[in-house]
Amino acid sequence: MKEWSRKVYVELPRPCEEDHRSMQKRLLAALRDCGSFYTGDSQSVFSHVVRDEADIRIRPAVLNDCLAICEQADWQVTASLGFDGRVWELLALEPGDTAAQHYGLCADLGSTTIIMELVDLNTGETLASESVFNPQIAYGDDILTRIFYTKDHPERRRELQEATAKGFRKLMVQLSKETGVDTRKCNILTVAGNTTMMHFLLGLDAFGVFQSPYAVQTLEPEVCRGAELGIPVQGFVYLCPAMENYLGGDIISGMLATGLPDREEISVFLDVGTNGELVVGNQEFLLAGAGAAGPALEGGSVRTGMRAENGAVDSVTTENGRLKAHVIGETEAKGICGSGIVDLLAELYLNGWIDLRGRFQEAEIRTEESRDEDEKEKLRIPGLKKLPMRDAASEKDMEYAIEYAQGLYFYQSDIDEFIRTKAAAMTMVEYMMNLIGLGMEDVGRFYVAGAFGTHIDKESAVTIGMYPDIDRDKIISPGNTSLQGAKKLLLDRSLTEKAEEIIERMQYVQFGAVEEFIELMRAAQAIPHTDLQRFPTVERRLLERQAAKAEK
Amino acid sequence: MKEWSRKVYVELPRPCEEDHRSMQKRLLAALRDCGSFYTGDSQSVFSHVVRDEADIRIRPAVLNDCLAICEQADWQVTASLGFDGRVWELLALEPGDTAAQHYGLCADLGSTTIIMELVDLNTGETLASESVFNPQIAYGDDILTRIFYTKDHPERRRELQEATAKGFRKLMVQLSKETGVDTRKCNILTVAGNTTMMHFLLGLDAFGVFQSPYAVQTLEPEVCRGAELGIPVQGFVYLCPAMENYLGGDIISGMLATGLPDREEISVFLDVGTNGELVVGNQEFLLAGAGAAGPALEGGSVRTGMRAENGAVDSVTTENGRLKAHVIGETEAKGICGSGIVDLLAELYLNGWIDLRGRFQEAEIRTEESRDEDEKEKLRIPGLKKLPMRDAASEKDMEYAIEYAQGLYFYQSDIDEFIRTKAAAMTMVEYMMNLIGLGMEDVGRFYVAGAFGTHIDKESAVTIGMYPDIDRDKIISPGNTSLQGAKKLLLDRSLTEKAEEIIERMQYVQFGAVEEFIELMRAAQAIPHTDLQRFPTVERRLLERQAAKAEK
Repeated sequence: MKEWSRKVYVELPRPCEEDHRSMQKRLLAALRDCGSFYTGDSQSVFSHVVRDEADIRIRPAVLNDCLAICEQADWQVTASLGFDGRVWELLALEPGDTAAQHYGLCADLGSTTIIMELVDLNTGETLASESVFNPQIAYGDDILTRIFYTKDHPERRRELQEATAKGFRKLMVQLSKETGVDTRKCNILTVAGNTTMMHFLLGLDAFGVFQSPYAVQTLEPEVCRGAELGIPVQGFVYLCPAMENYLGGDIISGMLATGLPDREEISVFLDVGTNGELVVGNQEFLLAGAGAAGPALEGGSVRTGMRAENGAVDSVTTENGRLKAHVIGETEAKGICGSGIVDLLAELYLNGWIDLRGRFQEAEIRTEESRDEDEKEKLRIPGLKKLPMRDAASEKDMEYAIEYAQGLYFYQSDIDEFIRTKAAAMTMVEYMMNLIGLGMEDVGRFYVAGAFGTHIDKESAVTIGMYPDIDRDKIISPGNTSLQGAKKLLLDRSLTEKAEEIIERMQYVQFGAVEEFIELMRAAQAIPHTDLQRFPTVERRLLERQAAKAEK
Repeated sequence: MKEWSRKVYVELPRPCEEDHRSMQKRLLAALRDCGSFYTGDSQSVFSHVVRDEADIRIRPAVLNDCLAICEQADWQVTASLGFDGRVWELLALEPGDTAAQHYGLCADLGSTTIIMELVDLNTGETLASESVFNPQIAYGDDILTRIFYTKDHPERRRELQEATAKGFRKLMVQLSKETGVDTRKCNILTVAGNTTMMHFLLGLDAFGVFQSPYAVQTLEPEVCRGAELGIPVQGFVYLCPAMENYLGGDIISGMLATGLPDREEISVFLDVGTNGELVVGNQEFLLAGAGAAGPALEGGSVRTGMRAENGAVDSVTTENGRLKAHVIGETEAKGICGSGIVDLLAELYLNGWIDLRGRFQEAEIRTEESRDEDEKEKLRIPGLKKLPMRDAASEKDMEYAIEYAQGLYFYQSDIDEFIRTKAAAMTMVEYMMNLIGLGMEDVGRFYVAGAFGTHIDKESAVTIGMYPDIDRDKIISPGNTSLQGAKKLLLDRSLTEKAEEIIERMQYVQFGAVEEFIELMRAAQAIPHTDLQRFPTVERRLLERQAAKAEK
């Protein structure tokens, strides 16, 4: 384990006739006596053989304050040291012994939310965690809008950079308020985010992320000074490196968080966000891929879809033959979020209201609005209506929609879209498993990272074929692995080498036009799958539910 | 030989589907192919085994511009690289091949004058040289006033820092104007100056330079970014390290310039400026010392003393039994500078107007103003008068003074002061030679650095015992060795190690209260010396002059 930051209490010998070394020499000698500053590569004993005192940098701006502080503190001071990626640097001197107050910051830089934690570097404990909406949102809700905003406008890149930094500054202030710790005195901030976020934070042109041939500006940026980025930590900022344009530092960070690349068993790591990113692998291989899977699964392309916030239906059950929605904040429902959608589809399917293909069961359909008294008794799907299609050109363009909460409908087209997306995500997994000659049943751990995984009901997700039908204990919702990895990187600098090693090992799999992939996807475009035998527990639940209904 | 700066023309492969490396990787790979970037210590093959592309730093601010420049220049660009003391850094990218335009700066930061040279790093040629008065002068003519001004006032240290930087900026503008070269594009500026100047340039408290126990802030500062110091070079600033508070980077630089520490023969290096600094040594030993020798020798404590500028008497001869002064700028004389004083004293001595002790020859004195006609024929020293002493309390406090130019007088007290000072300087040399068991006759080379050495007449200097009476070819006036050393450091970075090695080898000799030193000095307080036999050529000249006078 190596650190990014050190706080070292030293009692300096006072200058006198016999010892009139310079302040710089005096400090360096005292610090050197306090332990080794290992700057090198663990693989080579010979790398960075440091020359005497040259191993700790002291910039004039810092040296400038040292004398006054030493005199004030009777030459008993605490040195704050940070590692700049190559060399240690004295970042500040504090009067007295403040080694017990030793903090660092880590952050997940998401396109929607930035989350930051203040960590006690002596204990490894998180003292506080705060989040803000990413101020970049002012320049566009989605990443692509922001990228186009900055394209060919260097001054706008600066705007986005400054907006990002503003988010970090706000978080630092909030964390300071909450804990009383001066976050500006942190010697290190580690950040994980996707490749676009990395570019925006650094003020770089991110157009290459989305534009062929996908040559970005950097994937492994230099350790920066906070000041360089407008982030007022006195030390450095480390960004977790990325593997590819679509496979960012947030995923690499997730690898560190889960430990997937170190285990014998084969794991699947799925991160559903703006994109869907996927890693399949173990200690021997690492396959990675990405697809535009995110928005639909999170409710983005659903007509009444919304974020998982107050007013969102986040779970759906069936009671007495009718759908029952739970609303976040126990308020009136305003829309439906990812976990609600997954529940809803599972219920529709288990109730027999939609078939394997996700189509409302035509034969059983008699809407509640049927005026014909004879038809009323045939009513089977409560809440189903025929409503105008999205962008309907004429009154005839109608489609079925089911009322999942008071006045809120989920459309046939929403279902179709969702199935296509979940099929794409699952097919990525399956395709990769096939590549190594294995099937879904061989998945040892199935990680679903992020808020999405945390809130989704596992059973429902298996029911609709979004998760494989494996032992439920193997399905893991680790939460914000990007942030967790950033924290690990904060606590152990040697993991930067691990991150680089992971990137080195990772093989990027392009799906796109592969024949086999398209076939697999076609088969997966069902609930749960065209081959129901691959989901035995779902088949069982289906039969159970039908039996229960028949009993009534 | 190692460089501080490189310009490398590269033709980058365009990004395409098969090669969508990041801009950072693309650049680093191309630069790596262009040669090795040796960052290590010449003594160890193993130091700094660089990890892949990690050997050149690219900061986001620079990376930010690369794409636009590459696209504009058809991916044919020239990289400007600078060495930060530990690692190479890409400082700028330029369109096309500009490797032929490769410049660096070096400077001598004197307390009175800053001199800067623009050097073609491809040829080693100096393209232009400029000088300005050090803007610090606004805060005090002498160093001590400036130091007291900043004492306990950190904000005033910033004023001094900014004043110094302003001088550098002015020089850069002048050099750019003169040559058409954009000096801001320099990747390196090397600076040599005394320890106080080093502190002021870095914004540091310099009080330790003059205050016991003489613990300064730094003697070997870090390589800084120009921007850190308010100096608009795009690269770095290296300050030649100092050995002691009174033995600054200007002297170490002088060692590099003269090559004294590498030769077999024993050399003396004397730098007369604000202080008198001295090094005696060869490839086996290096003794160094300093004393407050400067001002008096340069005319500072002489009543009509002045800098060597227009209006200063810079040389004195005797014609037809009368003193004849040469004035810089051929204008009316306003005062006398160092070289003029040395000539004047030599002439007074050779004419027999002052004795070995520097006293006007009382026996021969009859002033021109003597009203007594009888005395008139006894007139022997033309231009001699009795004038009020400095700070005279009564009319009786008179002393002799000689008119060396129209209305300008050199006083007995001026002579006394000068003799004390030159004796102190020469005694330092002699004392050191004695320390190693040798005498003045064993001096192989006698360097007198700086403007002082350049303008002084060797013969006069020997005559008054300021230089030893050795083969005149061995007396060398190398000029501004501080600047010359800075240029050497600019052209060959490996000399930084040499500088450190010199400092390591150097032994600082304290004179002060040493019994032997005081005795030697007492003996040296004469013109040329109490022991005239040690100055055989002076004795001969004296006899020749007396013989010539007698003939008349």
